[in-house]
Amino acid sequence: MANEGFYGDEGPIAASATALAESALTLVRVSGKSCIGILADCFSRPEALRKAAGNSVVYGWILDEGRRVDEVLISVYRAPKSYTGEDGMDISCHGGLAAGRAVLQTLYNHGFRPALRGEFTFRAFLNGKIDLTRAEAVLEIVSAKSDTGRGRAVTRLSGVLEQEIQQINELLLDSLTEIELLLDYSELDGVTSEDEALPGRNNVEEALSRLRRLERSYRAEKLYRDGALAVIAGKPNAGKSSLFNLLLREERAIISEIPGTTRDWIEGWISIEGIPVRLADTAGLRESDDSVERLGIERSLGLLGEADLIILVLDGASGGAAQAAADDFIVDRKDTPVLAVWNKADLAPPPENAAGFCAANFCAVSAKTGAGLDLLYERIAGVLEKTAGAAAPDPSGAALGSGRQKSLIDTAINCAETALAARDEGLPADIIAPSLREAVNSLGEITGEVSNAGILEAMFSRFCVGK
Amino acid sequence: MANEGFYGDEGPIAASATALAESALTLVRVSGKSCIGILADCFSRPEALRKAAGNSVVYGWILDEGRRVDEVLISVYRAPKSYTGEDGMDISCHGGLAAGRAVLQTLYNHGFRPALRGEFTFRAFLNGKIDLTRAEAVLEIVSAKSDTGRGRAVTRLSGVLEQEIQQINELLLDSLTEIELLLDYSELDGVTSEDEALPGRNNVEEALSRLRRLERSYRAEKLYRDGALAVIAGKPNAGKSSLFNLLLREERAIISEIPGTTRDWIEGWISIEGIPVRLADTAGLRESDDSVERLGIERSLGLLGEADLIILVLDGASGGAAQAAADDFIVDRKDTPVLAVWNKADLAPPPENAAGFCAANFCAVSAKTGAGLDLLYERIAGVLEKTAGAAAPDPSGAALGSGRQKSLIDTAINCAETALAARDEGLPADIIAPSLREAVNSLGEITGEVSNAGILEAMFSRFCVGK
Repeated sequence: MANEGFYGDEGPIAASATALAESALTLVRVSGKSCIGILADCFSRPEALRKAAGNSVVYGWILDEGRRVDEVLISVYRAPKSYTGEDGMDISCHGGLAAGRAVLQTLYNHGFRPALRGEFTFRAFLNGKIDLTRAEAVLEIVSAKSDTGRGRAVTRLSGVLEQEIQQINELLLDSLTEIELLLDYSELDGVTSEDEALPGRNNVEEALSRLRRLERSYRAEKLYRDGALAVIAGKPNAGKSSLFNLLLREERAIISEIPGTTRDWIEGWISIEGIPVRLADTAGLRESDDSVERLGIERSLGLLGEADLIILVLDGASGGAAQAAADDFIVDRKDTPVLAVWNKADLAPPPENAAGFCAANFCAVSAKTGAGLDLLYERIAGVLEKTAGAAAPDPSGAALGSGRQKSLIDTAINCAETALAARDEGLPADIIAPSLREAVNSLGEITGEVSNAGILEAMFSRFCVGK
Repeated sequence: MANEGFYGDEGPIAASATALAESALTLVRVSGKSCIGILADCFSRPEALRKAAGNSVVYGWILDEGRRVDEVLISVYRAPKSYTGEDGMDISCHGGLAAGRAVLQTLYNHGFRPALRGEFTFRAFLNGKIDLTRAEAVLEIVSAKSDTGRGRAVTRLSGVLEQEIQQINELLLDSLTEIELLLDYSELDGVTSEDEALPGRNNVEEALSRLRRLERSYRAEKLYRDGALAVIAGKPNAGKSSLFNLLLREERAIISEIPGTTRDWIEGWISIEGIPVRLADTAGLRESDDSVERLGIERSLGLLGEADLIILVLDGASGGAAQAAADDFIVDRKDTPVLAVWNKADLAPPPENAAGFCAANFCAVSAKTGAGLDLLYERIAGVLEKTAGAAAPDPSGAALGSGRQKSLIDTAINCAETALAARDEGLPADIIAPSLREAVNSLGEITGEVSNAGILEAMFSRFCVGK
């Protein structure tokens, strides 16, 4: 019978690790104490399975009360050499909705329970197979919207971030040890820290500079992971919709519209040089006289406020007016970068001085012929990368992958700064030490060396089932 | 570089065997000559992979020009002990869209080509691993809409149908051999077949009876595989929509509506005692005065003509009128079974004589309280099974799983009947033999002993990629 479980029990769990959809295969993943023996009880070749070596594949049928449920291949993993660190198996079943469900039902009938979200990865963490930065990288890879986003997460999965954080932590720990030694002596000998320079001050400074580099890295990672919102704006008939359709049509569309979502604008996701871009077109809405539609228009204009980039389409065919419009617009939008796109360049090439009013953020295209499109992609990516500071990556290759990591790094930076400031004010070692210790704890929380059950559960429950 | 291939070449092929969606894992399947060596060239542990024994699992990273693409587990299969009968591997990658795509792209860059639809199963057939009835069973399992449909396909996958067809074929072949012997002798000795009883006549008759049983099995298999259309009809306010919603709400819904499909009626798939039932509700449409809607109503009524079952909802609360309506309706629909459902039984129980006008096809429910629902499910399944002749299965457990098999069985039956009739008319053996030979050929085509490239390609191209 399927029973309820909790993160941290060691019971046998099972889940479909692949999407239950019409497909060639479904992979059902199981893990936990005695799971191989339990599965053997509903398998056509129980002895072959019980005796199977780790990292071997066993062929047979899943049986339920003697009835053949599905013909499967079972990859067997023996603790600790498995994803979770426990005994585990990947059961390769036939695809489709019915086969995976029938196999899972059989497992539940025999003592497995449905895995909680992220529970396999949670167990991998508990058993010391991966730290939290790698666990989060797994989640990132699964939900990556573009190949660049995936590649950056893969770097974290390989442990680059974990190593960088451990190195920074060692710098801080060295200082902390020295300070605490000083504290001990000062108590004994009446020596105050003011008598000497703060020990390991250079260490704290180096740690702080590396922490700040990591902190800066987050905006770029977020750009490649979550993407950016680019909103197409411009006067009626400037060619906004044509440009929107052209950009989406270029087979770069990565995610189609979510069915059933109603919006007052049209949008789609495209991948531009590895950046997932949510492209929205407010075109057509501005010209309406209908009162209901006007409400929609206001909401659409609100979208401009959220934009990471405004793509301002100028009507090249009516040059002067377009340029004027652009000027007005740019003055109005100082907080959001604007990329001015001179459209209909096939009818009217941009004037000599066109680049003047918005410097590098300008390009000319023809939505009709497609000319200039490559430069447009380059410009969009360029503006977004510049805003996110993606141009100056951490030389270690390490970068933050989650908001959780970012906020802990912020805490560590604050604490390290407090410690340095305290030293500069000449405060004693026992005032400085707690700040440093808090910085060390924050870094420990990032990798999971220091952890608390509630935060872990909240983190892993964001995973999908089967991971 | 990815190149084009054709069914029957032995080149290295690769495809995602699971749906590319946000999920824990993606399984990329590869097969073909030298595929293990090719993959080793883009793998972090090339020697471990090259030397891997069959049915073992190798851990490592997929690399593209030294870049880490994904961390994977590779299950290695060595010819002939593999699904396809060739060397093959299942690569378990991280889930999501990006990871699977990146791994596939790496494989294409290194000499794999995208697999054609059903190409893995096609190769399994070519290499004698499975016959065509099993190959078709694989396709059935993948697209099964209900657990019963899946279970029936699993029976075929285990080879029951293949064995039954081979046994029938042997009966026919025995007769054919005897007749052909007779032919040889008659040519030599001037003896005609009229001098003796048709040899093996009993064999042909037994084969024919078993073929007819298989032929009859198809309607029931089709019912469990493709499902049936049940349309809810009845007077306004009889409670059609309430009943429809109640049936769908019962967590039996198996497939939600396809987004973007516009229909003039509401429908949903539910599973009733293992039968996938497409339940359609035309309610509400009949009462409209709008001309556009009226066109929709006409189309909805056309749906009644396609129905396998009409669920006629009677308004129990206005008893007499409802009964009269039912009578009229049933007289009009002699070709389609009608199940009369006395609704609002909580307000007014059905009259004593209610069952009289439609015999067993009657039941009373309350869409409001849910009372009577179990009997309604039973009745729906009962009527559909009776119509499909599902009550009398083949004692061998063998049943036809595809329209292709059905039409070849029909040919075999016709030929065997022709042979028997020719004998009864006293025609000579050289007239009888060709019909029997054609029957044998048709049965050989079902299992694939006799095959032709065009038909095979047409058949396997109905599979999904990766199967």
